[in-house]
Amino acid sequence: MTTAQPPVSRFPVPALAEMPDDIRERVEAVQEKSGFVPNVFLVLAHRPDEFRAFFAYHDALMDKPGNLTKAEREMIVVATSNLNQCQYCVVAHGAILRIRAKNKLIADQVAVNYRKADISDSQKAMIDFAVKVSSEAYKVGDSDLQTLNSHGFTEEDAWDIAAISAFFGLSNRLANVTSMRPNDEFYALGR
Amino acid sequence: MTTAQPPVSRFPVPALAEMPDDIRERVEAVQEKSGFVPNVFLVLAHRPDEFRAFFAYHDALMDKPGNLTKAEREMIVVATSNLNQCQYCVVAHGAILRIRAKNKLIADQVAVNYRKADISDSQKAMIDFAVKVSSEAYKVGDSDLQTLNSHGFTEEDAWDIAAISAFFGLSNRLANVTSMRPNDEFYALGR
Amino acid sequence: MTTAQPPVSRFPVPALAEMPDDIRERVEAVQEKSGFVPNVFLVLAHRPDEFRAFFAYHDALMDKPGNLTKAEREMIVVATSNLNQCQYCVVAHGAILRIRAKNKLIADQVAVNYRKADISDSQKAMIDFAVKVSSEAYKVGDSDLQTLNSHGFTEEDAWDIAAISAFFGLSNRLANVTSMRPNDEFYALGR
Amino acid sequence: MTTAQPPVSRFPVPALAEMPDDIRERVEAVQEKSGFVPNVFLVLAHRPDEFRAFFAYHDALMDKPGNLTKAEREMIVVATSNLNQCQYCVVAHGAILRIRAKNKLIADQVAVNYRKADISDSQKAMIDFAVKVSSEAYKVGDSDLQTLNSHGFTEEDAWDIAAISAFFGLSNRLANVTSMRPNDEFYALGR
Amino acid sequence: MTTAQPPVSRFPVPALAEMPDDIRERVEAVQEKSGFVPNVFLVLAHRPDEFRAFFAYHDALMDKPGNLTKAEREMIVVATSNLNQCQYCVVAHGAILRIRAKNKLIADQVAVNYRKADISDSQKAMIDFAVKVSSEAYKVGDSDLQTLNSHGFTEEDAWDIAAISAFFGLSNRLANVTSMRPNDEFYALGR
Amino acid sequence: MTTAQPPVSRFPVPALAEMPDDIRERVEAVQEKSGFVPNVFLVLAHRPDEFRAFFAYHDALMDKPGNLTKAEREMIVVATSNLNQCQYCVVAHGAILRIRAKNKLIADQVAVNYRKADISDSQKAMIDFAVKVSSEAYKVGDSDLQTLNSHGFTEEDAWDIAAISAFFGLSNRLANVTSMRPNDEFYALGR
Repeated sequence: MTTAQPPVSRFPVPALAEMPDDIRERVEAVQEKSGFVPNVFLVLAHRPDEFRAFFAYHDALMDKPGNLTKAEREMIVVATSNLNQCQYCVVAHGAILRIRAKNKLIADQVAVNYRKADISDSQKAMIDFAVKVSSEAYKVGDSDLQTLNSHGFTEEDAWDIAAISAFFGLSNRLANVTSMRPNDEFYALGR
Repeated sequence: MTTAQPPVSRFPVPALAEMPDDIRERVEAVQEKSGFVPNVFLVLAHRPDEFRAFFAYHDALMDKPGNLTKAEREMIVVATSNLNQCQYCVVAHGAILRIRAKNKLIADQVAVNYRKADISDSQKAMIDFAVKVSSEAYKVGDSDLQTLNSHGFTEEDAWDIAAISAFFGLSNRLANVTSMRPNDEFYALGR
Repeated sequence: MTTAQPPVSRFPVPALAEMPDDIRERVEAVQEKSGFVPNVFLVLAHRPDEFRAFFAYHDALMDKPGNLTKAEREMIVVATSNLNQCQYCVVAHGAILRIRAKNKLIADQVAVNYRKADISDSQKAMIDFAVKVSSEAYKVGDSDLQTLNSHGFTEEDAWDIAAISAFFGLSNRLANVTSMRPNDEFYALGR
Repeated sequence: MTTAQPPVSRFPVPALAEMPDDIRERVEAVQEKSGFVPNVFLVLAHRPDEFRAFFAYHDALMDKPGNLTKAEREMIVVATSNLNQCQYCVVAHGAILRIRAKNKLIADQVAVNYRKADISDSQKAMIDFAVKVSSEAYKVGDSDLQTLNSHGFTEEDAWDIAAISAFFGLSNRLANVTSMRPNDEFYALGR
Repeated sequence: MTTAQPPVSRFPVPALAEMPDDIRERVEAVQEKSGFVPNVFLVLAHRPDEFRAFFAYHDALMDKPGNLTKAEREMIVVATSNLNQCQYCVVAHGAILRIRAKNKLIADQVAVNYRKADISDSQKAMIDFAVKVSSEAYKVGDSDLQTLNSHGFTEEDAWDIAAISAFFGLSNRLANVTSMRPNDEFYALGR
Repeated sequence: MTTAQPPVSRFPVPALAEMPDDIRERVEAVQEKSGFVPNVFLVLAHRPDEFRAFFAYHDALMDKPGNLTKAEREMIVVATSNLNQCQYCVVAHGAILRIRAKNKLIADQVAVNYRKADISDSQKAMIDFAVKVSSEAYKVGDSDLQTLNSHGFTEEDAWDIAAISAFFGLSNRLANVTSMRPNDEFYALGR
């Protein structure tokens, strides 16, 4: 019933030895920390300058201090990525969400329909906003920020939610165009 | 970060002892076979006549002989249910798909973007048709059946694909309106 | 300007004599009561088990006791079926709606734009909910049931509305895929 | 189950005696010919200059010579008006279509799903184009005119189809905003 | 990077000498007033009766007295025409809007996202309504007119807004089907 | 008719003296080169790390060598940004497109409907792909790259087109959420 496993990317993927030093070092660091190299690192290494900008942006949003917990940031990624039908992001960030939230069920729940997930009403409002940014940002206005505020989110939190939604919208499109394949390791992580 | 676990259904759920005999027997049979009672049995037991018709329809499509494998039928369910954002069906039938296909990865792949899944081109054409039936059946015409035929599907297979897509469209809507909760057991099955 | 009349179904239709006894009896009963056999009985008789489940489900929703009048149930069918562009269901259930409501105008009004039909505000709220279930059930939440309640509908009525909408969504998809032809008799009934 | 019959328009409707002479004469002429005054004449008489332009446009498209039959022009109106959920246009022009085509069934068929109607393949291609003009005219290009041509339609026919679709798009919007009520007489005409 | 300039219309365009007198006179008048002949006059002159009705309708809406300023009417045209992706109307009426409003920036702002334009909240509400009429007029109801009223618009203003939106919806479709080319002169007017 | 000019951003904007050195230097450099500071630099300076990643990404895509001309890259930005209703990007990059293409008309043409713009068929195919990436990247497959190839675009060009579309999708969302105001200077540049 299955066909041969497709490659990691529709585009060429450089060998570790061919990568610029800074990129190879980042790849080796993640390999050491995670035990495997998430394919997004290999796929984007085909374009070193874009690799650097992509991960700088990622880190600026996902590793920065702020009111949103690490798990909440991953909820935004998982919910919007499923609406964008991005296999890589749902599978990979679903794993990270399970780990961050120490919750085996949450990633699948948030991916399919966050309105029915075991999360708080504030978290649902957070994802409502992220989905609006993802699908019709041109309609975002004062009332959206007021709704967020009524759930305890500051104006800076609104920026964070919007920027994470927008950045992973970029990521979702790259993953779909490159046919970026989720590593097999992600599927069972945190379950 | 999480809230109290919500109930199995927005509507009343009868105790086993309150169910009509035939329904209680079916519930006990599935309990014995699976080791737990999938919540769809409890949620629909609130309406015994609808319960009976629902499962008669389910069995007529999913347990009947035919060219589609059991795994292929589940692929249709999983792909269309995610587009309908039905948490129960994606989680529960994702588990069944993993088991039927003896493949730990396939359910998440098919749910998020079947075009990138480890399935055959014919299976992708099968899901293309199922998605068209689910989202714009009014446009289905001769050319769709010809495309299916070019992938080896007979006219009777086309009926099967369409009927499974249509039946789970019903199921997706009931699950979303009742807030039918997937059993915790499903998430890890077959992984 | 017209072409030869197309057949009743894209799929084979069994002769009365070929049908299983229980199905033939139901067909004969409806023939006796209505004076003709609605094509849905012939089209689905190609699949006896599905026929039985389909009509069991239909009867469980449309013939059961409950607060919704028979005419109101048909309004739900007619409005959602037109949005799904299902010729069979709009024409056949339009006829039934005219008869149930004893109103010659109502079916065409409800089919095209129920917001402008000669029905009560509560009935418009009922169809609003049915349309939401039909088109974006994943968004249904507590506030929808509260709105229904403010129009006098109980929680059980909400289930009825949702289930009718969902069941005819299934029916609409089958009718479109099979190219189920409405009987000529339906068009003028109740006018 | 029904409420009091709503008025003909959400806006004021002038009495015959208040209308400018040319408009009153047109209203009287249609009354004499049809036996009743279609409400569109009354609703638009509230704005005499718009009334004159509207009917001049209508006549320029619907009464002109050309390859499209009168019935075919009405098919375009009925199909696109139902997609725009315009009760007045579907009911009124459905009646005219039945009369023009001398066919009791055709209007309901074309309204709900023209792909399943008893019309020729060329007529289906004609309506395909009309629907594209109605819903995404910005995508119309050379290939659309070539498709029409392969069905025997000239470039001038393409203009006619497009203009009828566009004009009734205007009409549909006015009818929905004014809550223009179809006359009771239309429903049974030609059946 | 550019190709040869495409013609003014996909359809034949009559020479001035070939036009009926009244049409030629209108063309000459606009030429004298504007310094050039906007291509819409040439494109529609291919169909004299439609030309006359079109401009009669245009004048009845755009030149009539009423509460809406000339600039506000153009805002409606520009905002809805961009959503309909009509190059001719956005470019030509963008120029007129800049002139009417004596504002070099306003046309581009309103075209792309009127919610962020330098216009009043009432003008945003006016365009909200115009966009609803353009995209989903079937949902327009009492509450829309109440919202307009809360911004100071009368019922007659609501008709004006709706009619302008609907008329230019017709115009947008004709321009897209004919590939009506905006005159080069429009781009810089009023900047 | 106009209200007071809104601020540059919904969020705080740092003074030049408050910016980190590297950011202030970039701002001063663009000021020197362009004669004014495009507001995107001020708006994003509120978040220095995101500023750095954003412009690194921008430069990696827009300033890199490659087969796409500078003008073609701007066409992609302008066309997709208008569909996303992003005022800042259409106005600012419209100006850049006019300058890069040395063409006063092209930006407005491409923004509203690139299918009718004075560009080559290959450039229209390029934008077709960019729009697909922007609106339904999950459907991108081999056939899209083959279509691009038939217009002379390599696989690396496909990455470039997709990445520009995806990056400006991020930019469009940030601009809409921050209410980023286009500088007045952009409107007339290159006209």
